[in-house]
Amino acid sequence: MHSSLRYSFSSWVIERRKLVNAALREALPSVKTQPTTLHRAIRYSLFAGGKRLRPILCLAAAEACSSKGDPLKSAMPSACALECLHTYSLIHDDLPSMDNDDLRRGKPTCHHVFGEGIAILAGDALLTGSFELLAHVKPTKRYPLQVFLKEMAHAAGSQQLIAGQVADLEAEGKKWKLSDISFIHQRKTAALIILSLRLGAMSVNATSRQLDTLTSFGAALGLAYQIIDDILDVTQSREQLGKSSGKDITAQKATYPAVMGVPAALQEAEKQTNKAMMALKSLGKQAAMLELFARELLERTK
Amino acid sequence: MHSSLRYSFSSWVIERRKLVNAALREALPSVKTQPTTLHRAIRYSLFAGGKRLRPILCLAAAEACSSKGDPLKSAMPSACALECLHTYSLIHDDLPSMDNDDLRRGKPTCHHVFGEGIAILAGDALLTGSFELLAHVKPTKRYPLQVFLKEMAHAAGSQQLIAGQVADLEAEGKKWKLSDISFIHQRKTAALIILSLRLGAMSVNATSRQLDTLTSFGAALGLAYQIIDDILDVTQSREQLGKSSGKDITAQKATYPAVMGVPAALQEAEKQTNKAMMALKSLGKQAAMLELFARELLERTK
Repeated sequence: MHSSLRYSFSSWVIERRKLVNAALREALPSVKTQPTTLHRAIRYSLFAGGKRLRPILCLAAAEACSSKGDPLKSAMPSACALECLHTYSLIHDDLPSMDNDDLRRGKPTCHHVFGEGIAILAGDALLTGSFELLAHVKPTKRYPLQVFLKEMAHAAGSQQLIAGQVADLEAEGKKWKLSDISFIHQRKTAALIILSLRLGAMSVNATSRQLDTLTSFGAALGLAYQIIDDILDVTQSREQLGKSSGKDITAQKATYPAVMGVPAALQEAEKQTNKAMMALKSLGKQAAMLELFARELLERTK
Repeated sequence: MHSSLRYSFSSWVIERRKLVNAALREALPSVKTQPTTLHRAIRYSLFAGGKRLRPILCLAAAEACSSKGDPLKSAMPSACALECLHTYSLIHDDLPSMDNDDLRRGKPTCHHVFGEGIAILAGDALLTGSFELLAHVKPTKRYPLQVFLKEMAHAAGSQQLIAGQVADLEAEGKKWKLSDISFIHQRKTAALIILSLRLGAMSVNATSRQLDTLTSFGAALGLAYQIIDDILDVTQSREQLGKSSGKDITAQKATYPAVMGVPAALQEAEKQTNKAMMALKSLGKQAAMLELFARELLERTK
């Protein structure tokens, strides 16, 4: 990437991250709200320094499809809902009865600090809160609130996000085929990435063609993103990642690098990245930042 | 209650319970849906023989406020959403890191049968599913979907239902004042009972006065219901209740009988019951069944 482009891109990301963080701070109950333990636990996990990937993708999709008005403002309720949803899934995934992780976003996991009971309830509250935030979207004629609600509940539900987590849980220690791994990744990761793009686009009343484009883009991006995540788990240290590393191998998790090795997994990630970039083409110039953002995600080292 | 009245009342309840069960069976994914473990766990807890108190209150409120159309049909999506919400809260409350219960609705608890990880995910899926079901309500001009969504997310959220569970968790072993206990009961029990009545009434486009009436009724009913629950925990056996009994004392839970003894707690339950019945009067004859149902709940022995 050209250095001046990288500069303006990096300020583009920082700007959006700031806006998301400010909106989340405003939307969620303060740490002084009763019960304070719960609200401290929620804010602890929510403001632990996440990349805000899903909300930024949501905002970027809105900007890519917007023809009038302020796309950032229109998409912000969805963006905040997506980050709450993602944080709930991290808190529950880290629990002792799930992945049993002690480090997340560079800090001790929620249940390590607040205990398992409060961590479960903090996750429950964030999941519920994500739907409360969704009530703040401004529906359009093409996309009434019902559509937002159905899409989010479906992507987060028992046949998508939660199905991915179940498969992940049941996957440990088994022998896996690539098709199984792709099934898990689609649900565990791609479902929420596709949802992020779709809710952003729906917030600015995108055409159904734009929505289809973003769905194809998100499916490929989600898969590539998860493959890279799993490669980093093998190649990077715990300090670099800010979460435990090398655990996938110990737990015999279903991952691309585990099945085909790191070099072939990298090739697969590149293949999916190219697929994602191809899909994006029809959105034209307006999708430039979305493209840069996706490329950045795929070249990341943590 | 006169015997013929009891007969027709009891068929009234059975009829509604059947309708709710049929709608739930239809709405939730089958046990053959992938991932099957998860969907078996969900159905195991959902069809463990619950009383369907909240959905029946929802339907009864709709019938009490309806002026045209089929109130049962209008209120059914909300009724199903409420039972999913309630079942999620039971599954999570029973977890080892919460109340650590091994019996619920006369059967081993979800985590005992399916393991803790799947039980947490089954609860998450039911919570998410309850919002998916809410997408099926038919909003009216007075009550757009946004209002249903806000009310449900708020009542189930970090300052109501979950706040009650946190307080319950933190209450164990402490010394309690009556005002603390009433705070917990309002959130842990009354919030969802009030929500049930309100969603039912909103489904048939009730007036705001009818809604206020049902809210006062629900607040008193919810409190009385929880006091009786706590009295039964002291006076009934595990076999009679179909869940563990006598645990509140062991855990030094915040309950009315623990603070004031069983006779005074019974008096308080009666006081709240009378308050509930008084509130209901303004709804007139149409609320007769709702009144009988509430009275039955308060005279129950399990």
